[in-house]
Amino acid sequence: MRAIVYKGPFQVAVEQVSDPKIQHPNDVIVRITSSAICGSDLHMYEGRTAAQPGLIFGHENMGIVEEVGSGVTTLHKGDRVVMPFNVACGFCENCERGFTAFCLTVNPGFAGGAYGYVAMGPYPGGQAELLRVPYADFNALKLPPGTEHEEDFVLLADIFPTGYHGTELVQLSPGESIAIFGAGPVGAMAAYSALIRGAAEVYVVDRVPERLQKVKDIGATPIDFSKGDPVQQIRDMRGGDGVDKGVDAVGYQAVDPNKNTEQPSVVLESLIQIVNATGMLGIPGLYVPTDPGAPDPNSKQGKLLISFGKLFEKGLRLGTGQCDVKRYNRFLRDLIIAGKAKPSFIVSNEVLLNDAPMAYEKFDKRIEGYTKVILKP
Amino acid sequence: MRAIVYKGPFQVAVEQVSDPKIQHPNDVIVRITSSAICGSDLHMYEGRTAAQPGLIFGHENMGIVEEVGSGVTTLHKGDRVVMPFNVACGFCENCERGFTAFCLTVNPGFAGGAYGYVAMGPYPGGQAELLRVPYADFNALKLPPGTEHEEDFVLLADIFPTGYHGTELVQLSPGESIAIFGAGPVGAMAAYSALIRGAAEVYVVDRVPERLQKVKDIGATPIDFSKGDPVQQIRDMRGGDGVDKGVDAVGYQAVDPNKNTEQPSVVLESLIQIVNATGMLGIPGLYVPTDPGAPDPNSKQGKLLISFGKLFEKGLRLGTGQCDVKRYNRFLRDLIIAGKAKPSFIVSNEVLLNDAPMAYEKFDKRIEGYTKVILKP
Amino acid sequence: MRAIVYKGPFQVAVEQVSDPKIQHPNDVIVRITSSAICGSDLHMYEGRTAAQPGLIFGHENMGIVEEVGSGVTTLHKGDRVVMPFNVACGFCENCERGFTAFCLTVNPGFAGGAYGYVAMGPYPGGQAELLRVPYADFNALKLPPGTEHEEDFVLLADIFPTGYHGTELVQLSPGESIAIFGAGPVGAMAAYSALIRGAAEVYVVDRVPERLQKVKDIGATPIDFSKGDPVQQIRDMRGGDGVDKGVDAVGYQAVDPNKNTEQPSVVLESLIQIVNATGMLGIPGLYVPTDPGAPDPNSKQGKLLISFGKLFEKGLRLGTGQCDVKRYNRFLRDLIIAGKAKPSFIVSNEVLLNDAPMAYEKFDKRIEGYTKVILKP
Amino acid sequence: MRAIVYKGPFQVAVEQVSDPKIQHPNDVIVRITSSAICGSDLHMYEGRTAAQPGLIFGHENMGIVEEVGSGVTTLHKGDRVVMPFNVACGFCENCERGFTAFCLTVNPGFAGGAYGYVAMGPYPGGQAELLRVPYADFNALKLPPGTEHEEDFVLLADIFPTGYHGTELVQLSPGESIAIFGAGPVGAMAAYSALIRGAAEVYVVDRVPERLQKVKDIGATPIDFSKGDPVQQIRDMRGGDGVDKGVDAVGYQAVDPNKNTEQPSVVLESLIQIVNATGMLGIPGLYVPTDPGAPDPNSKQGKLLISFGKLFEKGLRLGTGQCDVKRYNRFLRDLIIAGKAKPSFIVSNEVLLNDAPMAYEKFDKRIEGYTKVILKP
Repeated sequence: MRAIVYKGPFQVAVEQVSDPKIQHPNDVIVRITSSAICGSDLHMYEGRTAAQPGLIFGHENMGIVEEVGSGVTTLHKGDRVVMPFNVACGFCENCERGFTAFCLTVNPGFAGGAYGYVAMGPYPGGQAELLRVPYADFNALKLPPGTEHEEDFVLLADIFPTGYHGTELVQLSPGESIAIFGAGPVGAMAAYSALIRGAAEVYVVDRVPERLQKVKDIGATPIDFSKGDPVQQIRDMRGGDGVDKGVDAVGYQAVDPNKNTEQPSVVLESLIQIVNATGMLGIPGLYVPTDPGAPDPNSKQGKLLISFGKLFEKGLRLGTGQCDVKRYNRFLRDLIIAGKAKPSFIVSNEVLLNDAPMAYEKFDKRIEGYTKVILKP
Repeated sequence: MRAIVYKGPFQVAVEQVSDPKIQHPNDVIVRITSSAICGSDLHMYEGRTAAQPGLIFGHENMGIVEEVGSGVTTLHKGDRVVMPFNVACGFCENCERGFTAFCLTVNPGFAGGAYGYVAMGPYPGGQAELLRVPYADFNALKLPPGTEHEEDFVLLADIFPTGYHGTELVQLSPGESIAIFGAGPVGAMAAYSALIRGAAEVYVVDRVPERLQKVKDIGATPIDFSKGDPVQQIRDMRGGDGVDKGVDAVGYQAVDPNKNTEQPSVVLESLIQIVNATGMLGIPGLYVPTDPGAPDPNSKQGKLLISFGKLFEKGLRLGTGQCDVKRYNRFLRDLIIAGKAKPSFIVSNEVLLNDAPMAYEKFDKRIEGYTKVILKP
Repeated sequence: MRAIVYKGPFQVAVEQVSDPKIQHPNDVIVRITSSAICGSDLHMYEGRTAAQPGLIFGHENMGIVEEVGSGVTTLHKGDRVVMPFNVACGFCENCERGFTAFCLTVNPGFAGGAYGYVAMGPYPGGQAELLRVPYADFNALKLPPGTEHEEDFVLLADIFPTGYHGTELVQLSPGESIAIFGAGPVGAMAAYSALIRGAAEVYVVDRVPERLQKVKDIGATPIDFSKGDPVQQIRDMRGGDGVDKGVDAVGYQAVDPNKNTEQPSVVLESLIQIVNATGMLGIPGLYVPTDPGAPDPNSKQGKLLISFGKLFEKGLRLGTGQCDVKRYNRFLRDLIIAGKAKPSFIVSNEVLLNDAPMAYEKFDKRIEGYTKVILKP
Repeated sequence: MRAIVYKGPFQVAVEQVSDPKIQHPNDVIVRITSSAICGSDLHMYEGRTAAQPGLIFGHENMGIVEEVGSGVTTLHKGDRVVMPFNVACGFCENCERGFTAFCLTVNPGFAGGAYGYVAMGPYPGGQAELLRVPYADFNALKLPPGTEHEEDFVLLADIFPTGYHGTELVQLSPGESIAIFGAGPVGAMAAYSALIRGAAEVYVVDRVPERLQKVKDIGATPIDFSKGDPVQQIRDMRGGDGVDKGVDAVGYQAVDPNKNTEQPSVVLESLIQIVNATGMLGIPGLYVPTDPGAPDPNSKQGKLLISFGKLFEKGLRLGTGQCDVKRYNRFLRDLIIAGKAKPSFIVSNEVLLNDAPMAYEKFDKRIEGYTKVILKP
């Protein structure tokens, strides 16, 4: 089959590789119908990870069940399914408590597995024609047959649940106010989730006009940090008050607006300032323990300078970590089916699998029209 | 009346001051029967705060109601009461949600008030003969009449709830394992609370033999960090595994065991290492936004270098802040009455109010037998 | 001042009564600008309670602070406020845990107090020109000055929070399905709240066309129980499946659709059938321990025959009781201010206080156009 | 192999039956070392269910893994394991949310499966030499090797978690008071769990002296309902007050103390009286939708007359249903290993499998010394 293969920094290729096979009775093979490119794929693409050439990318995968292992109970050939980016067993101590992003089984020696990602276990990605799905009864969510909502459903693999996760980490409840840093796909999905959950005020901080326009279109309040300190802008809108909750949808590649250089703790620091005492910070944005490309020695080891004294004084609580997609994907799917959520407003375009190298390049260069690409085999 | 008055660094005096008066219809005046010296009083005593001479110390107060304001509903002269260290109104946005440590009313411009503490509002402390208690229906917890359990009940003002708060911030549930850093009064109370809540394994890290012995006596596992890396010691006891939850009962004056100097983030860093992925960190130990005596410029501003990348990778959550005493004091009181909790095992001795200057000096010098002193007017 | 006074079954009168006075330092006097008639007022109006002539009705009250007691901290003359129907102290064991509908202070011998209601304490109602508000810092919610949103804000006294309470008792989360029995004001507000909270499917059961139309207009699915078993109708729409959660917004005066007579357990029985195993039932609809007008001896004592075996087999959980308005009113107010909630769609009309007797009569007879009346002094 | 086979009312026999085989890649075969007789086995034994002759009894099973299916990941021959009484898939909508007692996969058409129980699916029981365990990675909990704690660990299959479930359904927190009706194995385990969780006061109601003695021995307060109304007895001990929480560990075969006949709602009615307003009722005691042996026509259909008006007035919440054993068994196991729980105090004796018919007869007749029997193959 054809697959998108990592060749080295800034290089991916469409290559012929062996078809995946059933390796275990609980496996299924899925014929991919849609596979999205994720911002986190760029970490590998840019060579800022330990990813080795040969890796097949793709962790936002959906398709049609093609072949079913002998131990699979609930899936059948022809079922339309979407897979959480997490690979998880369903029965370890973490999975049974719902922490499927921290499965202890699928990636021995580490808590958590994923498709097509460096250090996340031996699971080739789905930017390809076919995908092997382990523990398939657990790892494939059934969808209504047909082709309806294809661009919405594919976002259930990662980006919609991950944005939602930000709002869940802060236990956002109706009538609260929230500040979300970052209006990329995760931030936009966090804002969208906050609105679905009944937030009273949703402030979204970014500096890219297209992104700010999109969150404005869904009913959030855009804050352009290139126009001034976002903390002050929000306070000014609120008569001096801060907000109940905050989400960091940016992560470690945050940019200091004053210096226009990477400053990994700048978003965390802003959140500590803008969230009111007793509030919560949700951090779905990625931070890593080692980052060879970081701007300083501490950041290279994932160490950040944080105003912990202020955080304590305000009695803040914070939650971090990759999203346990299975906590949410079933319910978010039902919102899509009911017509109450249409997350595909963030999809920029569909691209043939064969054109993926071009799409990666444009996405990496932030070229307009390539902000959230769905690959179509 | 007599009161303990701050005179300057390392100086307190017993002085005659004016008796407190009813200033508001919801006030009561309490005749103090017991008032404990708290570790946090030493921050002021040592001159490491902005406290001005003249301040009356004391936020761990209990006694007998002596006089009742015209608006007070449930208290009467002669009632035996213990006061949370927090002064709170009971009706602001934070109080009504239970966040009484962050009251927006009693200390304008800041979230939270307390008796006898710098920057916590105009509330003289209770290391004195009499104490004015504002919003007394809300701020005084009734106790059974008599003198029984006096040394247990006085700990309901701060140290027992604060230790308990550490276990609540991590949502400790029965059968879980927990590591607690610090075996001083707060750490010992956190360990005691963890055992009351049904923890399976409670590890407590300190280096003072008397403290380690006390936590061993109640059924916890002492870890002497002067004997080697506490993280490794705990892992060794657990076949390599970490723990479900962790509590920092030390705060910003943490000591680096290798260098024997203050290193404010050393406990946080150990917690990030020892708590398992998906776990939680509870931080009742005090961190401050400004600390003139800190070892380096960042710490002086309350900024700590934290392994945030690792924290994120493990999906850890953390909670901070001073204890909302009222969330817990009623239930902890009932445990004392039922004979199921006897926190006074940490009380070292009782001292006459007149001898308080001596007690402060010995406590500050960590002289044995003065680890938790109750002042008796 | 003028007030609406209960004179006997089916009789209320506009009478001159003494102005309320400040009786306690924590009181305020409010000049009423709007006071709604509640369905529960009809229980008294119809003579089905022990209410005695002379009672001033009205527990859905808003207005302007006119006079302030000497112990009041946060309110000032001229403040615009809305009062929860519950009178509560703010400092008893129940209030401090947020259960303000079950205050142990304000109505000795009973858990809970209210304005203008039989057996709910000595608090005259607000269908009048003036209202005394006890513990006013706790019991009055501040609103933006002016007259905007008047018809929305008055619903914060009872009906909007009470409907919301139904969705909170079942811990409704985004993407879930819910069946709500009753499309009167409480049921409509429960449906509206469910939609605000992000429910995927909201089914609302009633038989009054106007009510069904209103819930349809806001995006819920109306189910006309006069057209057939509502449980079957919902299952048919869901391919045989039930729903995640259910709300009873009807209470003890439920009508058996087959016999068209009162049958107090008919809604509970339907909920037990339609809610899926592991689901929850929220019951804001009123049930009473004694009902002289009930159809049978057991119902007269508030005893209902319930399919408890089936309830257990499905592992259902249920929550009951009057709404703790203060848990929600601040957040619901902020949704109104932000333009994200406009509950006044259920208000049928405004009526001068002097015309209240006519309004009561028409409301009691279910005459169209008098479904939710706001009285204007 | 030998197994205990149901032959008809009041008859079980030790018979030779075929050995179980691996039927699915996720199965394991366990060689039973201990299998307890449960009170719920007596419902079948007494002929009060639709159980057909030929059924192999036994749902409280532990043993050693003997054979492993090709799809099993974490279990190996020789592993010592205990199985929850629930059979569950681990991946359906209910299992993934932790509701393993309501699995939608293993018993089509019904929510929930179990070993050796009528209507709970095609899963022979474990009162035998061997047991087939489906979805074994999910359904077998690993234990330390050896034979230590055998009588404690076997109780992890049902009775310890089920008692604990009662305290979890009411969200029992430290310092609260609780009344538990029933001091049989489930009630005793509920009381034991309440004490482990830090309850301040635990009242346990029964009339069998041995049972009352056992709960007294562990630190609970026994209430003998043959000596007078248990509600009044508890109130008398508490100065008139009720309790925060209540557990029904009796179920539908409750006995009216005044008449000494079955009265299925008598315990529920007592709980509604004794639990304070705002409290919670946890109901692990079994109620069934059809009971041919019930004392009246309504009870035969599982319909009970309940003081719902009073329940509502007090704002009570209640939770029901069989225990999701997997929610708790891992943590309760760790308490046993740590020496902090020793539930085997309720085990009366061990009996050879061959003597099971005698043990059933004596247990059914409530003969002393046969209150909780462990069968040993």
